[in-house]
Amino acid sequence: MNDAGAQRNAEPATLAEPAPACNELAVEEISREQLLSDFRAVRAATERLAAGLTAEDQNIQSMAGASPVKWHRAHTTWFFETFVLKPYDPAWREIDPTWAYLFNSYYNGVGEQYPRPQRGLISRPDVEEVGRYRSVVDQAIMELIERAPGKRWIELAAIVRLGLNHEQQHQELIATDLKHGFSFNPLHPAWTDLPPAARQPAAELRWIGYEERIAEIGAVDDGRYCFDNELPRHREVVEAFEIASRPVTCGEFIAFIEDGGYRNVDLWLSDGWAWMQETGTRAPLYWQQGDDGRWWQYTLGGLRPVDEQETLAHVSFYEAFAYAQWAGGRLPTEAEWEIAAESANGNGPFAEDERFHPAAVTGTPTGSPAAMFGNVWEWTASSYAPYPGFEAPPGAVGEYNGKFMANQMVLRGGSCATPRGHIRATYRNFFYPPDRWQFSGIRLARRA
Amino acid sequence: MNDAGAQRNAEPATLAEPAPACNELAVEEISREQLLSDFRAVRAATERLAAGLTAEDQNIQSMAGASPVKWHRAHTTWFFETFVLKPYDPAWREIDPTWAYLFNSYYNGVGEQYPRPQRGLISRPDVEEVGRYRSVVDQAIMELIERAPGKRWIELAAIVRLGLNHEQQHQELIATDLKHGFSFNPLHPAWTDLPPAARQPAAELRWIGYEERIAEIGAVDDGRYCFDNELPRHREVVEAFEIASRPVTCGEFIAFIEDGGYRNVDLWLSDGWAWMQETGTRAPLYWQQGDDGRWWQYTLGGLRPVDEQETLAHVSFYEAFAYAQWAGGRLPTEAEWEIAAESANGNGPFAEDERFHPAAVTGTPTGSPAAMFGNVWEWTASSYAPYPGFEAPPGAVGEYNGKFMANQMVLRGGSCATPRGHIRATYRNFFYPPDRWQFSGIRLARRA
Amino acid sequence: MNDAGAQRNAEPATLAEPAPACNELAVEEISREQLLSDFRAVRAATERLAAGLTAEDQNIQSMAGASPVKWHRAHTTWFFETFVLKPYDPAWREIDPTWAYLFNSYYNGVGEQYPRPQRGLISRPDVEEVGRYRSVVDQAIMELIERAPGKRWIELAAIVRLGLNHEQQHQELIATDLKHGFSFNPLHPAWTDLPPAARQPAAELRWIGYEERIAEIGAVDDGRYCFDNELPRHREVVEAFEIASRPVTCGEFIAFIEDGGYRNVDLWLSDGWAWMQETGTRAPLYWQQGDDGRWWQYTLGGLRPVDEQETLAHVSFYEAFAYAQWAGGRLPTEAEWEIAAESANGNGPFAEDERFHPAAVTGTPTGSPAAMFGNVWEWTASSYAPYPGFEAPPGAVGEYNGKFMANQMVLRGGSCATPRGHIRATYRNFFYPPDRWQFSGIRLARRA
Amino acid sequence: MNDAGAQRNAEPATLAEPAPACNELAVEEISREQLLSDFRAVRAATERLAAGLTAEDQNIQSMAGASPVKWHRAHTTWFFETFVLKPYDPAWREIDPTWAYLFNSYYNGVGEQYPRPQRGLISRPDVEEVGRYRSVVDQAIMELIERAPGKRWIELAAIVRLGLNHEQQHQELIATDLKHGFSFNPLHPAWTDLPPAARQPAAELRWIGYEERIAEIGAVDDGRYCFDNELPRHREVVEAFEIASRPVTCGEFIAFIEDGGYRNVDLWLSDGWAWMQETGTRAPLYWQQGDDGRWWQYTLGGLRPVDEQETLAHVSFYEAFAYAQWAGGRLPTEAEWEIAAESANGNGPFAEDERFHPAAVTGTPTGSPAAMFGNVWEWTASSYAPYPGFEAPPGAVGEYNGKFMANQMVLRGGSCATPRGHIRATYRNFFYPPDRWQFSGIRLARRA
Repeated sequence: MNDAGAQRNAEPATLAEPAPACNELAVEEISREQLLSDFRAVRAATERLAAGLTAEDQNIQSMAGASPVKWHRAHTTWFFETFVLKPYDPAWREIDPTWAYLFNSYYNGVGEQYPRPQRGLISRPDVEEVGRYRSVVDQAIMELIERAPGKRWIELAAIVRLGLNHEQQHQELIATDLKHGFSFNPLHPAWTDLPPAARQPAAELRWIGYEERIAEIGAVDDGRYCFDNELPRHREVVEAFEIASRPVTCGEFIAFIEDGGYRNVDLWLSDGWAWMQETGTRAPLYWQQGDDGRWWQYTLGGLRPVDEQETLAHVSFYEAFAYAQWAGGRLPTEAEWEIAAESANGNGPFAEDERFHPAAVTGTPTGSPAAMFGNVWEWTASSYAPYPGFEAPPGAVGEYNGKFMANQMVLRGGSCATPRGHIRATYRNFFYPPDRWQFSGIRLARRA
Repeated sequence: MNDAGAQRNAEPATLAEPAPACNELAVEEISREQLLSDFRAVRAATERLAAGLTAEDQNIQSMAGASPVKWHRAHTTWFFETFVLKPYDPAWREIDPTWAYLFNSYYNGVGEQYPRPQRGLISRPDVEEVGRYRSVVDQAIMELIERAPGKRWIELAAIVRLGLNHEQQHQELIATDLKHGFSFNPLHPAWTDLPPAARQPAAELRWIGYEERIAEIGAVDDGRYCFDNELPRHREVVEAFEIASRPVTCGEFIAFIEDGGYRNVDLWLSDGWAWMQETGTRAPLYWQQGDDGRWWQYTLGGLRPVDEQETLAHVSFYEAFAYAQWAGGRLPTEAEWEIAAESANGNGPFAEDERFHPAAVTGTPTGSPAAMFGNVWEWTASSYAPYPGFEAPPGAVGEYNGKFMANQMVLRGGSCATPRGHIRATYRNFFYPPDRWQFSGIRLARRA
Repeated sequence: MNDAGAQRNAEPATLAEPAPACNELAVEEISREQLLSDFRAVRAATERLAAGLTAEDQNIQSMAGASPVKWHRAHTTWFFETFVLKPYDPAWREIDPTWAYLFNSYYNGVGEQYPRPQRGLISRPDVEEVGRYRSVVDQAIMELIERAPGKRWIELAAIVRLGLNHEQQHQELIATDLKHGFSFNPLHPAWTDLPPAARQPAAELRWIGYEERIAEIGAVDDGRYCFDNELPRHREVVEAFEIASRPVTCGEFIAFIEDGGYRNVDLWLSDGWAWMQETGTRAPLYWQQGDDGRWWQYTLGGLRPVDEQETLAHVSFYEAFAYAQWAGGRLPTEAEWEIAAESANGNGPFAEDERFHPAAVTGTPTGSPAAMFGNVWEWTASSYAPYPGFEAPPGAVGEYNGKFMANQMVLRGGSCATPRGHIRATYRNFFYPPDRWQFSGIRLARRA
Repeated sequence: MNDAGAQRNAEPATLAEPAPACNELAVEEISREQLLSDFRAVRAATERLAAGLTAEDQNIQSMAGASPVKWHRAHTTWFFETFVLKPYDPAWREIDPTWAYLFNSYYNGVGEQYPRPQRGLISRPDVEEVGRYRSVVDQAIMELIERAPGKRWIELAAIVRLGLNHEQQHQELIATDLKHGFSFNPLHPAWTDLPPAARQPAAELRWIGYEERIAEIGAVDDGRYCFDNELPRHREVVEAFEIASRPVTCGEFIAFIEDGGYRNVDLWLSDGWAWMQETGTRAPLYWQQGDDGRWWQYTLGGLRPVDEQETLAHVSFYEAFAYAQWAGGRLPTEAEWEIAAESANGNGPFAEDERFHPAAVTGTPTGSPAAMFGNVWEWTASSYAPYPGFEAPPGAVGEYNGKFMANQMVLRGGSCATPRGHIRATYRNFFYPPDRWQFSGIRLARRA
């Protein structure tokens, strides 16, 4: 996913931070109260993420593909200003045309964009100004929601709801971009109070089988929220397969390393091997090995030992592929994953848990796959491509997903940094094969 | 396709250069005479390609992805030495272990490889030595074919046949790599006697429709030759679609250019736009515009004006995608292409025509798509991925295809540089989205 | 100059910020009061530079060669901690070993260094912590100055004085690095209240002649402060020459541009022409041309029109060389410049003027060259090399200058960002030929 | 030296290949017979270098800074065509305008140049055509020498003589560029019959002292041949110094390696250390260490053990500097070297010895420095800069030297690949600090 991009399944949110409840409604059914409530909740969740960070923390950018927290806060606000206030609020006066240039991510339809690798140089506007920008736009949006004339209400509700889902995608990026930036600091800053590893053993891995079928894949177009790339629902031939009851653990991946997984060319895709040689990669991102051979990892709770029972994260598609080869399996396709997700259980953690680190999947396996939602995104074997009959919406909003449909692979299921109500079975996230700074893990599949 | 990699449909060869007739047989049915005849024909065809070239011509390498002609001649010979003579001929003495290092392309299972970007530095062994290497190996292989004991015959016939199909892939690369190398020479060397453009008008473009179906895709595993990546034959849901009666012409692409196609960001994939900006691409490879606005192109017959009626070649996947967007269509999927190819007509030109340049597709359209085989490879919308249930063969030969299944797109149908008997409907070629030095063109598709 | 590196002439400081008066004394003559007073003044001057900047402003890093303001504040403090407190104050407890790693610039003798291009990622320690670090170290240094036992006083005074001169170098870099960072912000942040251009005409350019001589070049080793690279004083044959009465103006450089100076290969060094083509340079750094052809420039007072009368700055050595060729002159050698500087008049502005932008050199030329000190650094024709008999001091402090004596060119005279008391006639600054972010200008010379 | 560039001292040539005898004459004194004889000898020497090479050998280019042998043969011919035939022979018809583009190295005054890194792609014109080009131009030049009208004779003789010296520079590059190209071939091609190492011990190193003086440096402008960069002769203050009686041996450099010279940052210039880290350099170019710790090196006679007694070659300026630091000395300045060269003895080997590999300097040291001419070029501490009063000649020939006077260091004395009559005490060669593919070695100096 470039810049942002992700979505979620509709489990009832039980935590303090309710998901956008209006995701579960057709646009026509959304009430002003519901939208207002969702809007307040999502916008507040973003600010809560930023609350513990200094101005400097909010401004660092550690690679072109990551953005400063301040920029995320401003960009999501710019989205509402550009796609809601400008077209729907006649009284709205643009805050500053230069800001539109600074905080546009990639929407060519609404103007030029400030070069992405330079976002960390934008010391001004500063965090206070961005905070005020958020307040002013929030106020205007909330008044608009309350007072918008009926004839434009449906359009308005649809675009506000899109804006909220967009903002939730950036909430996840705030966590992952911040982690990437902090990882360059030898002081190992802690952002969360990550509890010590419980050291419960991970559940035994079992294989869960599915019969051959012609499956319906993709979201039902019934008015409930989904992104354009989940549509249209369509049929696919899916042969019988089995999927692992839980994702790969850190301990399992250590076994791969110790068995020479990074030295065995037969396990790797040709491009993956080249990537590994060029980058010198020999372990997941954020891992380092002590002189005594023990593995440590940087987490958003600081530096800590790798817990073998915990779910593995921060591997590239190439590493996921090689691991699967080594383990005698393969990665699931999108369709297989989506079929299996229908019976998922034991999900989480999610962003609302404020853990921002994968958990161990423990307990006794049931007949259903565990932890498909939350915890870690799961690389699939599917490249990110349009579903048959896909058409991007007209206008700048049509740039949301379609133009990224090349060279990327699909991930499914959300992570410990995904808001709970944002994810769903049909949700398609996407990143380039070498990308590792998301909480990206592995679930195995195999022929039945 | 990395280094090599491609396959073909089994139309009867009518030209001087007969295709590997044993491709049409199950391995058990191949006679020694037939294999010998095929072996002589394919090996001779390679030498005929090199015949008009000086030693210097045969040694140039213009990019890491292209190889010198001499290297192709040696590498294909090394393939027979390594995979046939070493295991099957007890009397064989390796010519030179350093040659095995120099002429191994990417088979990790049989040793290290000389760095690919440096192949043009290998002035020694020189063309005469490589010629002798070919003769010596040819002699040994032919004797082996004649005398191999019956119990190993099947195995031997299978690997020799693979070697011949492999060599044909390199015949195509000899033409395309040479064209790339020559294109840097301001003297515009001519390799073939390309006849002047006939200037017959291209056939009118019509749309040919296909009903929705559950299609059988991939090669039938009946012993006739195919590459591993064409297997297994499997079912896919294919919705109703239409495909163009012929590929895009140069004149149509000039209309795209003149309509600002290279300046309109809305037409492009995000990665494609970035590629275009970085490389400064504003026209197909080998095209240049004169001061009077006329387009010229370097061909293997020298520099000549772009003929608007001729079939377009040398575009990247990104350009193909953007053109399709502009034209209101899209690229076909692999499955759609394969369905349509069953009724293809009017094919060619092929390598045996010794034209090495696309032709115009002329005449009155029939109800079937024309020129699907030969002329230009056609970019599909499908990324190169394993078919459901695909398994790479064991051993070094298993490195042939599977490890390249990431980041590349499938092309179908062969080109004017493909030997006629090498291509077939199920043949999957693959290149990276920016690659343009193959004879790669565009055929449009659209929803029914 | 890498990271820092520069020195100054001893004119009496008349402004609020007195120069290190102890520079004018032999170390043995420095009193505790004098050193204490100098220490307070220099350290306070650094803090005054940072005072108007937000935490975010202080943390940006726009290229590997520039550092964040916060880093400069911490690094100069680390210098005192490392080279004064650790060896001379037995009660000192290192603040944090990680800080020693973060804030060491390039002194291999005292440990590893944090990678320079990542300094902008160091959000922690934050500006408040760095401020406290400065206070704590200041307190300890001041107590040490007051109480150091007599037998170590000379050594201590020498290293503290070096630390103050080092810090003044970083004061200049604070201004130039900040300007570079701010220049990427399309809001054009203003840091100073730069008065509007006075538009007084620049003084007429006259040539001032010097007889052939065997000159004494370099600093007299009499105990007054100088850097190691100014020693030893030695003899050089200098043939008769003439030097311009003032540096080149913006208007003169516009004439060069308009005469095709950037298109005329004959004016350029071969490396300079290649640099220009690669970087697309067609004007001094920070200049941009409006649609109406007028030139604008980013200054630390914001964006403003280029004033033709003002002294030119922000050109590379290559541009200085080409301009000199075009103007029929050449750049002066170090020795020529040093001879001419003995009679310099009308100097400034300096850092204490808080203008941080070059001024016009106005008025009637006298028989002496004007504005050799302050205003802009002047590129010389001399590469940065050791003087005959140069020896770097032992220990880590010996890494100060000598190891940079390759590939760089000498600049002389200081700039509008140089503290007044820091510069002197023998002071040698040095940068790579393409460097432009210092206030680097041009003074012409020619054969007599 | 870019592309070419070098000059020589006038020792009487005693070998088969006489040096350009007219170098020793004022232009006015050159007879037609003498020039004709020199012309024939120098042109034939180039062809003799190419004689043992295949067409493929002559076409390889292993880096942008090296050129194919065929290109050198054509370029030196183009030089005569462009600067002699075109202006002086009214009957001359340009062979092919595209050739002028292909074989112009860097003379902007006479047109565009084909991109340097692509010279290895120029398979056409082939070696036979280039051979004919040489013959045709030779014939025309020789006729011109015989028949040129007296009034233009002086000009003609001067430019022909320049062309011969230019060609000798390219003879050296033929050897060094070929060695570089061959070094990538794992077959280790042998070009010469290098005799086995004699294993005579290298002479003991002694220090030879010189008094302080005001020296006359540079060539006397008396009509004898020199390059423009050797002029004007001028005075320099040179303090007392000592210089080593012979250059550094391979054995001495092995001691540096074994003492950790490549790991000790204190020995290195800052840029040198960075270069070493980036390139992974840990030994001279062409050296490799066997598993048993023994050193081997690729030579133009094939792969052979490093002979500890032989003179070291193929080090960069950075390595030369570090070695000198380690050995307690320094590199000599240009002026020091030139003073010492006046009493040099025991010179060689030169190109005419057809050894193309450094020799050991053996025997008992005399009071004079040995082997200053031939054997290996010696890095000096002097950057390549114009002498005081230097002026480049007008016109395209003025591009010969001046525009390279930045970022390079001077080497002195010639090497085993330099024609004997080409070198002289005032000759200035120049390369970038990291360059190693010339036969570049080290002679130490130190303070008296």
